[in-house]
Amino acid sequence: MTRAIADPPSADVLPRGLEGVAVAATSVSDVDGIAGFYHYRGVDPTTIARTGTFEDAWYLLHYGELPSSNERNDFAARIRAAMTMPPVLGDTLPSLAALGPPGSMDVLRTAVSAAGVAIGCRPWTEQDHESTEVQIFTIAALGPRVRAALYRLARGREPVDPSPGLDFAANYLWMIHGVVPDATRVRALETYLVLAADHGFCNSTFAERVIASSGADVGAALSGAIGALSGPLHGGAIDRVPSMLAAIGDTSRVERWMRDRLDRGERLMGFGHAVYRTLDPRNTVLREVARGIGGERVALAEVVERTGIVLLNERKTDKRREANVELYAGVVLDYAGVPEELFACTFPVARMAGWTANLLEQLADNRIFRPAAQYVGREPR
Amino acid sequence: MTRAIADPPSADVLPRGLEGVAVAATSVSDVDGIAGFYHYRGVDPTTIARTGTFEDAWYLLHYGELPSSNERNDFAARIRAAMTMPPVLGDTLPSLAALGPPGSMDVLRTAVSAAGVAIGCRPWTEQDHESTEVQIFTIAALGPRVRAALYRLARGREPVDPSPGLDFAANYLWMIHGVVPDATRVRALETYLVLAADHGFCNSTFAERVIASSGADVGAALSGAIGALSGPLHGGAIDRVPSMLAAIGDTSRVERWMRDRLDRGERLMGFGHAVYRTLDPRNTVLREVARGIGGERVALAEVVERTGIVLLNERKTDKRREANVELYAGVVLDYAGVPEELFACTFPVARMAGWTANLLEQLADNRIFRPAAQYVGREPR
Repeated sequence: MTRAIADPPSADVLPRGLEGVAVAATSVSDVDGIAGFYHYRGVDPTTIARTGTFEDAWYLLHYGELPSSNERNDFAARIRAAMTMPPVLGDTLPSLAALGPPGSMDVLRTAVSAAGVAIGCRPWTEQDHESTEVQIFTIAALGPRVRAALYRLARGREPVDPSPGLDFAANYLWMIHGVVPDATRVRALETYLVLAADHGFCNSTFAERVIASSGADVGAALSGAIGALSGPLHGGAIDRVPSMLAAIGDTSRVERWMRDRLDRGERLMGFGHAVYRTLDPRNTVLREVARGIGGERVALAEVVERTGIVLLNERKTDKRREANVELYAGVVLDYAGVPEELFACTFPVARMAGWTANLLEQLADNRIFRPAAQYVGREPR
Repeated sequence: MTRAIADPPSADVLPRGLEGVAVAATSVSDVDGIAGFYHYRGVDPTTIARTGTFEDAWYLLHYGELPSSNERNDFAARIRAAMTMPPVLGDTLPSLAALGPPGSMDVLRTAVSAAGVAIGCRPWTEQDHESTEVQIFTIAALGPRVRAALYRLARGREPVDPSPGLDFAANYLWMIHGVVPDATRVRALETYLVLAADHGFCNSTFAERVIASSGADVGAALSGAIGALSGPLHGGAIDRVPSMLAAIGDTSRVERWMRDRLDRGERLMGFGHAVYRTLDPRNTVLREVARGIGGERVALAEVVERTGIVLLNERKTDKRREANVELYAGVVLDYAGVPEELFACTFPVARMAGWTANLLEQLADNRIFRPAAQYVGREPR
């Protein structure tokens, strides 16, 4: 490409990125950035993360209530059943796995799009609501199944079917490794999955609702959401904290390394959030889990956290900086047995719960998103 | 699914669907629904449609100026070169084609997502702008290539490579049929492609900009746009007019058929538009082309148009109803030699030009779309 594109528009259309503009009403989840609190349908997810299961969080997001013990078991069984690989989808996975690296979020996006076709998704405006709801649920359940299968295929191994004896978090690890995971490792993964299941009206949730609002099928909406999440300004950066910790090496080098990086005008990974102006409650829980795990890497992460907060807040005083959900997520996922290549892609596996709840809400009271734009280009001739 | 989802939100967050809210400044294109006029960077597309090529329209949308004859030829050659199938993408197409029917927009969405991975798209925030621009251009050029290959594969035929002697519109027909198309048929297709290349800040354009705003790669943005376009409230209905004409059969049955349909509370295909309150200028041009083609089907479409306008406006007086771009599009595409199964998917093949121009504009002055939502659910406990 040798010519510059036409000049970008210059007029002021506010607010940019729709920041602070309420574009929908929702009863799914909310974030209070000042108080440092978020919730799923009124329930504090950190409580579920400490003692409950991913099924609890998903059920809550979906139905609006925490499940009874029987309801949770039925729901877990339904998720397992929905993880059955459609043969026509299984046939596409080897060639899709060959498109990119074993942990590619873009390959996952493509496979989830294929899953939508494989299970027969049609525009939701042209089918009964029950079919749509089943399709939404099935794609979300196929998320970890497809993710694990692509990973194994890219490493030259056969996919592993879900185990009828395991729940969601354990099954994800089982389908990655083909080995029944240790309960304490499952617990660590479960904590992460619950915390990451939803988080207010974020960019990917908005993207899926915009897509679904045209009547597009739910495969279009959910693959679009993964696409949006893959952006580094949104969810595509979780695997950079482990790289940063590895680059720092040990606690004696933390301050020097971080100061150098900031002096070069580069960002520190694992700090700051668009909404939180105080402690990120997800970070608080993941730090607890990390402390329980212990070891040198956790000790390093703790020094990095303390040092980063000091350095960032002495340089930028416009708003308070704290560590975010990503700082300990890598340590926790690593302990759980999730391969580092899959850290980024484990985020959408969890977030499917929130996306599907938002999708159901969008469909229940839909209006196509068709905003205006202010034309500021050359006048028509 | 046996339980109802939690109650949908009820509070009033306005305006729904962001109708009338300017969410961005743009210099790409605009629509004046009152005057019945639209333009690409200030140039009337109906003029290009009558005498120019699709390359003219795409170049204009991309660079902001109509090309000189040399510039057009260079641009056409670059598009042809970019149509070269990446082998790793070619390997995925047979299994993707097996996922759905030969004209599936959802399979196209999946294949375009795969194309993004195959050509090595990475988050645009993490690579130089030139690489991103080349990727955007390549995915758009691969659109017709992939669409034609999937169609042939689904019908048990080998894909056909683009012909070095043909321009965009002719190459599309060549890659579908493997036969050099007649010039008058190419001309008919060209007219449609130019008219459909862009149309203001529509739902799919908004969806791709929301996705790209997170830093996601351009494969995510463009596959997301196809997903949005596939919704029947947006672009997924173009193939229904031919079905309607076939169901009506002949001119003597038009009024009875249409009245019956309206009496049953059903919609007439090919009428009405979200923005136009008067003649749709695209329809005017396509009607001209159809009249040039002539024949019984065109005569039927003309009676359907006249009758539909009378019936709709005698029933609904809130706003004026006219035929839209879809009424003659099927007749024109059929004459051009586009199989009816591919009518819907020929729309995104054209719209890629507008999407890519909008994508470049978004990237030139990006801010992540992260709106708020008004939480109206249960208070946190």
